[in-house]
Parts: sequence; C-alpha cells; structure tokens
Amino acid sequence: MNIAAPSTENAGPFTRACVWHKLLANKVVEVAEKIKKLGQDDPRRIVHSLKVGLALTLVSLFYYIQPLYDHIGENLIWAVMTVVLVFEFSVGATLGKGLNRMLATFSSGALGFGVHYLATLAGEKGEPIVLGFFVAIIGATVTFVRFFPTMKTRYDYGLLIFILTFTLVSVSSYREDKVLRMAHQRVTTIIMGSFIAIVTCICIRPIWIGEELQNLVANNIEKLGNFLQGFSGAYFKISEDGQPLSDKPFLQGYKSLLTSKNSEETMANLARWELWHYRFGFCHPWKQYVKVGTLTRQCAYKIDALNNYLNSEIQTFNEFGCKIQDPSTKICSESGKALRELASAVKKMNQSTSVNAHIENLKIATENLKSMLDTYHLKDAKLQDVIPPAEVALTLIDVVPCIVKIADAVHELASLAHFKTPATRVSP
Amino acid sequence: MNIAAPSTENAGPFTRACVWHKLLANKVVEVAEKIKKLGQDDPRRIVHSLKVGLALTLVSLFYYIQPLYDHIGENLIWAVMTVVLVFEFSVGATLGKGLNRMLATFSSGALGFGVHYLATLAGEKGEPIVLGFFVAIIGATVTFVRFFPTMKTRYDYGLLIFILTFTLVSVSSYREDKVLRMAHQRVTTIIMGSFIAIVTCICIRPIWIGEELQNLVANNIEKLGNFLQGFSGAYFKISEDGQPLSDKPFLQGYKSLLTSKNSEETMANLARWELWHYRFGFCHPWKQYVKVGTLTRQCAYKIDALNNYLNSEIQTFNEFGCKIQDPSTKICSESGKALRELASAVKKMNQSTSVNAHIENLKIATENLKSMLDTYHLKDAKLQDVIPPAEVALTLIDVVPCIVKIADAVHELASLAHFKTPATRVSP
Repeated sequence: MNIAAPSTENAGPFTRACVWHKLLANKVVEVAEKIKKLGQDDPRRIVHSLKVGLALTLVSLFYYIQPLYDHIGENLIWAVMTVVLVFEFSVGATLGKGLNRMLATFSSGALGFGVHYLATLAGEKGEPIVLGFFVAIIGATVTFVRFFPTMKTRYDYGLLIFILTFTLVSVSSYREDKVLRMAHQRVTTIIMGSFIAIVTCICIRPIWIGEELQNLVANNIEKLGNFLQGFSGAYFKISEDGQPLSDKPFLQGYKSLLTSKNSEETMANLARWELWHYRFGFCHPWKQYVKVGTLTRQCAYKIDALNNYLNSEIQTFNEFGCKIQDPSTKICSESGKALRELASAVKKMNQSTSVNAHIENLKIATENLKSMLDTYHLKDAKLQDVIPPAEVALTLIDVVPCIVKIADAVHELASLAHFKTPATRVSP
Repeated sequence: MNIAAPSTENAGPFTRACVWHKLLANKVVEVAEKIKKLGQDDPRRIVHSLKVGLALTLVSLFYYIQPLYDHIGENLIWAVMTVVLVFEFSVGATLGKGLNRMLATFSSGALGFGVHYLATLAGEKGEPIVLGFFVAIIGATVTFVRFFPTMKTRYDYGLLIFILTFTLVSVSSYREDKVLRMAHQRVTTIIMGSFIAIVTCICIRPIWIGEELQNLVANNIEKLGNFLQGFSGAYFKISEDGQPLSDKPFLQGYKSLLTSKNSEETMANLARWELWHYRFGFCHPWKQYVKVGTLTRQCAYKIDALNNYLNSEIQTFNEFGCKIQDPSTKICSESGKALRELASAVKKMNQSTSVNAHIENLKIATENLKSMLDTYHLKDAKLQDVIPPAEVALTLIDVVPCIVKIADAVHELASLAHFKTPATRVSP
C-alpha cells in the first residue's frame, strides 16, 4: 500500500492539508495492519510482550515496598536490569541467560574481591596500578576465550557478564570500603531478578524451545514428504492439461529447509538448558535432532533439482517417458509415505512401525526402475526426448539413499530418546 | 589427542600419580594447542582481545582520577558497563551498538522523566500505581516492537536498552529526588563509555565489516570459478588414470556457500553503520552484495549436483561422451574465467572489462553444446552409457544463466557503487 504523494503544487492550503491528512491516515492504517499481521502470525508474541511487562512491574514492586528497599537500597537496579536482559522468548534461552548470569556474577565477584585484596597489599599508590593491570589481563583473556566455538555456543553471555562484573567489582573496590557487602547485595539482587524472569517465563504459557526444535525438524521432514507425494502427479500430468503445477504451495514448502542450518543449531544449544521439561526429561539427545536436520537438508538439495524439472518447458512424453512413469510414481508415493510417517513419529515421540515396510517397498521400486534403465535399449530416438525423463528418474534414484539415511537417523533418535512403542500394535 | 585412561587398578600410589600426571600434562598440551590454533587461524582475535583489555583499563582510569570521580561519582559504573557491552569485533557492530545505546538511553531517559512528572501529579499513594502501569505498558509495547523484522535487524539492542533505561529511570525516580541530575550523569557516562569503545575499536587495527563482506562475496564467487575451472579436468580425465579427483580442495571450496545466507545478511546490516569508511563512502549499496551473494548461492546448489557426478563410479566414455567433451570443457573454462574476473572486480572495486567477452564466448559454447544435444541421434546405444555425460552437459547448460545473472548483478553493483574504470585500458 505504498501511495505516491499526489501533486499539491497548485492546490490551496486546505486541499493540501486534506491530502496530507489522507496520506497520514493511510500510513497509520498500514502500520496497524502490519501490527495485526505480526500478532496473528504468532499470537505467542503478544503473550510474551505482556509477560515482559508483568515481570518488570513485579520487579519494580521492590522499590515501592519500604522494608525491602531499606534492606537492599540502590542495588535494586541490578534486579531490574537482570529482568530486562535475561527475559527471552523461550524457556531455554531465559534459563541459559539466567544461569549464565548468576554463575558468572558469583565467580567473577569472588575473583574481583581476591584481586582487591591483592591490590590493597600494594599500598595506596600501587593499588590503581595493580587493579588496572589485572583488569586489562583478565578482560583480554576472557575476551579471547569467547572465541572458542564450544564456549561461544553455550557460555558467551556468561563470559561477557564475567568481564563486566569483575571490572565493576575490582574497580569500584578502589572507592568503596564495604566491598564484600556490595558484592553480596549485587549477587542477591541478580538472583532475585533472574528468579522473577525465569518464574514468569515458565509459569505463564511457556514456550519450550525443545518442542519448537522437535516440531521444526518434524515439519521439515513432512515438507519433503509432501513434495515427493505431489511431485509425480505434477510432473507426469503436466502434459495432459498443459498447466504448470509448480506453483502449488506443497511444492514450494521445502525451500525454507535449504537455509535452516543456523536456526536448528541455535535451538539445539538452547534446548539443553531446559533441564527438566516434562516431556523430554534429562539428557535428551538434542544433537541427534541436528543430525536428522542436516540429513533432511541434504535431501532437500536434491529435491531442489527435481523442482527445476517441473519448471522446465512442457514436454510430451514419448514411449520412454511413459515407461518410467509407473516405477517413478511408486517411488514418489512410497518415499512420501515413509517421510510423513517419520515426521509423525518424531512429532508424537512414537517408534514408527510402518516405516520399514515403506522403505522396503521403496527399495524394490528403485531396483525395478534401475534395472529398467540399465536394460533399456535406445533403437532410434532423439536425445532431447529421452534426457529429461531419464534425469528425473535418476534424481529420484538418488533421493532414495537420502531417505534411508533420514530413516536410520530417526530410528537412532527413537532409541536414544526412548520413544514409546505404540500400544495398539501386537508384534507377531 | 584423546587418550583413554590406562588401567591403574593394580598399580601402587606412585605409579598411579605418575599416570595421572601424564594425562594432565597431555590435556594441558591439548588445550595449549587449541589456543595456538585459534590465534593462528585469525590473529586479529588476539588483537581484539588486547584492545578490549586496553579499553577497560582506559575507562577504569576515571575511577582513579580524583577530580573526575568527584564530578560523576558512582555513576561511572555505567561507563564501564558500556565499554564491556558495546565493544565488538568489527567497527560496524561496535558503532551500531554504541549509537543504539546512546540514542536509546537519551530518548528513554527523557520519556522516563516525563512519566515521573506525570506520576508525581497523582499524589504519594497514586505514584507507584501510575509508575507500575507505565512500566508494564511501555515494557510490553517495546518488547512487541522488537518482533518487527526491520526493527530486529538494526535496532534490537537499542530497543532493549530503551526498556532498561526507561524502567530504571522511572522506577528510581520514586526514591531519588535529583532525577534530572541522575539522568544527566547516566547519559554522560554512557556517551563516555561508547566513545572510548568506538575510538579504541577504530584507531587500533580496525576490522571493517564492510571489507569483510566484500571479501566474503568475492571469495565465494571465486570458489565457484575454481570449481568450474577444475571440474572438466576432473570429470573427463577420471577415466584415464582411474583416480577420483573429487577430494581436491578446490572442488570442495564451494560447500561453505550453501549455508552462508545468514552471515551475509548480518554483515550487510552491520556494514551500514560504518558510515564514513574511507573506501566505501556514504550510502554504499550493501544490499546489492546480499543480492550477489544470493545469486552465487543459487549457482552453488547446481554446482553441488555437478559435484555428485564426480563422486559416481568411474565410467568409460563412449562416442557420445567424447563428443560433448570439447564444448563442455569450453563452457567450464570460460565460466571459470568469467567468475574469477568478477571476483577480482568486486575485490578491487574495478569495473570488469573482459567479463563481457568471456560471457559472449560462454553463450556461444552453450549454443554449440545445445544444438549438438538437440540434433544428436541415438542409433544403437544403451541408455546407461548415454545418461551420465548427458546429465553433466545439461547441468552445465543450466549453470550458464546463473553465471549471467551473477555478472549482471555485479555490473549493477559496480554502477551503484561507482567502481573505477581501470586506467590502463583505452577504449577504441
């Protein structure tokens, strides 16, 4: 709804005001629609915003209650700061930041106190030199440690807070006599703030990042399944009604997979902080989700090639094209079923029972197509008639090992995470 | 260097101590090697760490200088905090955070002061209620605004600091009489801290994220060029010496492109903060780099398909395979040259002069290959002998439009960013 400013050069001031008023009104409507869409796309965003508002009000209560204020005083700002900085969208991220912050404050406060003691030994003139030296050395060292990939993924925020608190404690110790009391109050308020943030985050409609990751991985597998189930129809019918079917939504869904690597890894790292989630328990194998995600993405690259054949010009199928139609359709439908079954297994945390049967069918169909291709003899054909369907067939054959790998990874996940076996089935 | 703990069950205490001492020594050596490698991989990490240490020492000087401390007092902690939180690896990130922090502190401090004034009108009992109400409303609103993608990419940190400072100012105003003085001191110290961080970051071996982005995009284009130039040799010679060539490093370089989307976008967003970089000037078209990067990545997906053909079993080439060898090799070499020329143009910020000639050659070679494929008649051939080389030929034909698109995007970039024309050439 971008509206170009109308020409107001020859208009009177009233007309001009009217025109600008209209433009402003349009702009307001536009912004309001954007806000509405943002909320509708994911209503949890609104809930999260209200939760932050509530947590802030809760923590500011401490200021208004006289006995609490008398006890802690100005250091209450650390509680407010903690709530603002620690409160994140998901439980995992909030817990990660909260625990990082508490641990880092505690350890760096102790170290800062030790350095303060050392510095006082150096006499009045030596004190700032010793303090400055330690601040530089420890600041530089911890900054370097932040570059370690393993530290960066899990403890980056903690290391930042470590530098911050250490510098604050050791530097303020030069001016403040009651260092121990100050450090104690700061740790207490930071624990209070983290506690408020974590409790609000968990108690009011919590968003567990572990569940999000599970759904993301399952949905990605499902998208591949949807593509493959729809592909054979779209490809082989293309010549009948002459309509390109490539713009159907289920044929485009897989595209978001191609670049989902980073978000999957971030989510898996955050999910580890959600120690006690009722569904997953301790030591849930989050890394395995990343592995399944990687295999799914490798499969998606091949699917991308299949999608390109859909976009090419309309072809009429010759004898060869018709010959591969049946086995290709079989491969598409079996792999679609297998993938959707795997997706549902991951989502419901069930052991998948019928996947192996689909995989077996898939292998048989692939062998049929392969031997058909191997033995097919071209007697008198133009190359350009044969190549496109043959390419599709070969790419489908290429996709099958990817699907088998995904299935194996999901089975491994199921055994690592102790997925339940569905009770309705009786094994023979 | 993971060494399993040797069995020490039947050994005496001295032997055991020796063994554990050795294990510890091995572990220390391992960690030391990791640190060394981290520093060697990118020595700028060491420089950055030292810069952080220096900035911290500089800011803590304020504490030791009596007149400065008298003037500002305890609020100096805000300067220390700002240095720790604002100092980032690249100039762009540091500037972005520093400007965000200063602007957010200033505006939210003013708003907090206004709310404080409103609350005092409500009388002693009404004040906490009004303050609590505003804290909740503004906290929730700004948290929601952080979900807007445009705000998230550029102003996320500023919005966080806005919530933080607003809550701090409006809540402390309940207990503090000299709110204006406090707000003023806080803004001053935050400006001081940001200034120290920014100056240290820029003056000592600065890392400009704009240059990093430019190099990344150029290197990615070059990697594609290297692959294509090496591909024809690796593919067509594979039958001669029987050695798979797919593990040569230039054939694997493109893989990092497949998932570089996020880092390119982040870098482009940060580069915009580097307003006055000597090489790029104001309003450098950073978005265009992302566009070039996206096109490069789309090309890399196709290259991935080519790479798969390298990994397949060794084939002997029949008559057809030999026939496509020449035009395919021509396409590979011309596209390799064109891409490397484009990469060098982006890196040196030159108008590329010879690219168009390569692109023309490339188009001619593609037409030759196409017409060869179109007119080739299979008289008596087995499908499995014909398909693999035909697939390679078709994928190469598919890659060409991608390269043309990359070239167009680079030309657009050159004109948007006013790349210089090389002086050595005289146009006829």
